[in-house]
Amino acid sequence: MRSVTTPLAHFHPFVPAGGVGSRLWPLSRADAPKFLLDLTGSGSSLLRATYNRLAGLSDGRVMVVTGRTHAAAVCEQLPELTEEELVLEPSPKDSAAAIGLACMLIQRRDPDAIVGSFAADHVIEPAEAFHDVVREAVTAAASGRIVTIGIPPSSPATGFGYIRAGAPLGLAGAPHALQVEQFVEKPDEETARAYVASGDYTWNAGMFVAPAALMLRHLEAGEPALYAGLAEIADAWGTPAQEEVVDRVWPGLPKTAIDYAVAEPAAAAGDVAMVPATFTWDDVGDFAAIRRLNRVDPEADCDVAVLGENSRVLADSSTGIVVSDTGRLVALIGVEDIVVVDTADALLVTTREHAQRVKDAVSALKQNGDTDVL
Amino acid sequence: MRSVTTPLAHFHPFVPAGGVGSRLWPLSRADAPKFLLDLTGSGSSLLRATYNRLAGLSDGRVMVVTGRTHAAAVCEQLPELTEEELVLEPSPKDSAAAIGLACMLIQRRDPDAIVGSFAADHVIEPAEAFHDVVREAVTAAASGRIVTIGIPPSSPATGFGYIRAGAPLGLAGAPHALQVEQFVEKPDEETARAYVASGDYTWNAGMFVAPAALMLRHLEAGEPALYAGLAEIADAWGTPAQEEVVDRVWPGLPKTAIDYAVAEPAAAAGDVAMVPATFTWDDVGDFAAIRRLNRVDPEADCDVAVLGENSRVLADSSTGIVVSDTGRLVALIGVEDIVVVDTADALLVTTREHAQRVKDAVSALKQNGDTDVL
Repeated sequence: MRSVTTPLAHFHPFVPAGGVGSRLWPLSRADAPKFLLDLTGSGSSLLRATYNRLAGLSDGRVMVVTGRTHAAAVCEQLPELTEEELVLEPSPKDSAAAIGLACMLIQRRDPDAIVGSFAADHVIEPAEAFHDVVREAVTAAASGRIVTIGIPPSSPATGFGYIRAGAPLGLAGAPHALQVEQFVEKPDEETARAYVASGDYTWNAGMFVAPAALMLRHLEAGEPALYAGLAEIADAWGTPAQEEVVDRVWPGLPKTAIDYAVAEPAAAAGDVAMVPATFTWDDVGDFAAIRRLNRVDPEADCDVAVLGENSRVLADSSTGIVVSDTGRLVALIGVEDIVVVDTADALLVTTREHAQRVKDAVSALKQNGDTDVL
Repeated sequence: MRSVTTPLAHFHPFVPAGGVGSRLWPLSRADAPKFLLDLTGSGSSLLRATYNRLAGLSDGRVMVVTGRTHAAAVCEQLPELTEEELVLEPSPKDSAAAIGLACMLIQRRDPDAIVGSFAADHVIEPAEAFHDVVREAVTAAASGRIVTIGIPPSSPATGFGYIRAGAPLGLAGAPHALQVEQFVEKPDEETARAYVASGDYTWNAGMFVAPAALMLRHLEAGEPALYAGLAEIADAWGTPAQEEVVDRVWPGLPKTAIDYAVAEPAAAAGDVAMVPATFTWDDVGDFAAIRRLNRVDPEADCDVAVLGENSRVLADSSTGIVVSDTGRLVALIGVEDIVVVDTADALLVTTREHAQRVKDAVSALKQNGDTDVL
C-alpha cells in the first residue's frame, strides 16, 4: 500500500524534447527530429517509448517541453497529453531554460515536487530496472539532493561527459546512492580509458531527479537573469497574459546548458548524488547505434539491418544498415559496414566508422544553402 | 577524288543495337538499354555517337538492327534514320540472327556490298583514327576476307575474347592487315597475361568488315536453318507479306552468336584478317568504366565523378562515382571507390571493385520477381 506522503507521490517527471539529432540526417530533419522517429523498429517513436516508461512511475503525469513547431507532431504521438502537460518553447534556448521552466511550473503546482528530467530520445531496457533505479533516485532526492543516474561505462567513450562518484551516502531506501565529486566534460581517449579503469566514473546521460525547489535555488544563484525571466513567464502561465509575456521575455533569455547553470555548481556545493543504472542505455547517437539496436535476424542469410516500412533490399556480400522510407529497391554489392539512408529528397551513403561525421555534413549543407533537405 | 568503284563506295555499316547492359543496372533497364544512355557526359547517347562515327564513312548510310520495343526511342535518337535503315527484331535472337538479317538485306540492295558490324554501345576516340582503320579494313575485306578490328590490349583483361594473329597479309592499301589464326574465348588471368606478353593477341571487340556474300556463305554453311529462315524473311522484306513472314519465321530461328556461327569457322578456313585499332576503345562494361570515362575535374576539391542532370552531391573524404537522375541530394561521407546509382525506383551502392557483379544482382532480382525495377 502506497501512502500519499511518500516522495514518489510528489514525483513529476518531464521530458525536454528538443534537438534535431543531426547525426541521424537525412532521417532526422528540422521538422522530424530524432525523438519523433521510430529508430528501433518497435513501431513507437523514441518520445512515445520515453513517455510510456515514465508514465508508469507517476500515474501518467508526464510533462513534455518542446518547440512550438513540434506541437502538432508531439500531440499526435501523445494524444493523452493534457494542455497543462505540454510546454511549448517559442524558440530553442538550450537546456537550462527548458528545464528551468518545467521545474518552475511543476513547483507552482506542487511545492514539494520532486522533478525528474529525462531525454526524449534515448533507448532504455528493461522498463522495470529503470523504474527501480528512478524510485531509488526519488528517495535519494527527498533527502535534499540532485540525484543523477549514472550509466556504468561499457567502453571508454569520448562522446559523453562523465560523473566522478565518491563515498556511499548510506541513505535509507537508496542503498546505491553515492556522493558526486564532480562532473567532467567529454574526455580524450586516454583519459576515458583511465576513467573506466578507475571504476569511479559513470557516463552522464543527463538524467536527474531532484526537489524542484533545490533545482531552482541553484538556478537562481547560477543564472539570476534566466531565473528572473522564467519566473516572469511562470507567473503569467495559464493567465490571459501568458502569450504576451512568453513572446516578450523568451527571446531575451540567456542560452546555456543545465550542466553549467545547475549541475556543476551543485556538485561543487556537495548537493549532488548518483545512483548507477542497472538498465541498458543507448542515446542512439548515430547510425552505428541504430545498427546496434536493430540486430540482424540470425536466421537471415545476410548481415544487413533494414529499417523502414516497405523497404526492399537486395544485399550481396554486404554488411551494415539500410534505412529506407521510399519503397525503392536498394541493392548493395560488396560493401562492408555500409550505412545507406534513403529518403525522398536526400540520400546518405557512409560507413559505420564515419557515422559520427554525419553532423559535419549537415553543417556543410547548411553552409552551402541546401536548407531544403535539412 | 573518290571513284565509285572503290570498295568504300560499297561499304554499308550497320549497328546491332541489342543488349540491356545489365552490369549498368539500375541505369540500364529493359526499356532503357545501355546504348540509349549518355554515359560519357557528352550529351549524346552511345548509339547516337556510334551512328555519327559511322555516317562519316558511308555518306550517312547506316543501318540499325534493334528490338521492336526500342523502335520509338531509336527513332527519337536518330531522326534521320530512314524506314529502310531501321530493322526491327520481334524478339532477341542473339547476334547471328540480327547480323545475318542485316547482311542479307544489304546484299539484296547491293550485291557487291561490304558490310561492317559495329556495336552500338562502345566508346571510341578519336573518330579520325577509327575512320582510317575502318577504311583499311574495307580495303582488306575487298580481297575476300572477313576483317576484324583488334584492340591492342592495355591489360590482361579476362572479360574479353582474344584474337590470335599471324603473318602480315601484304595487301595493297591495307598494310597492317594480318592473317587471323584463331579466335579464343575469355581466358583466365594467367592465360591472359601470357597472351598479352606474346604480342600476338588483341582483344575481340566484335567489330568486323566483310563482303556480305562471304558472311552469308559462312552462315549458310555453319547454320543452314538460320540461313534459310533469314532468307525467307529477306525475300518477304518490303512486301505486303513482311509482317506475316517475320512473325511466323522469327520465333523459330536458332539462337546463336555470330562468333560461333561465322567468325570461328571462317578463321579455321583461313578467311579472316585483323587490322589493329589505333584508336582508344572502351566497351563501358561496368560502372568502373563509367568512372574512367568521366574523369574528375582536377580543379574540383573532391574526387567523385558526378553524372546526371540536376545532380546534387556532397562528398566528404570520398572517392568514386555518383550517377543520379532524381535531383535528390546525395551525401557521401568517408566512402572510397564507391559507386552510387540513384534512380527513381532503384538505388545501387557498390564499389568499383565489385562493379562486374552488378550483373549477378540483376539475375537475383529477376529470380526474386522484382521485375518492376529491371
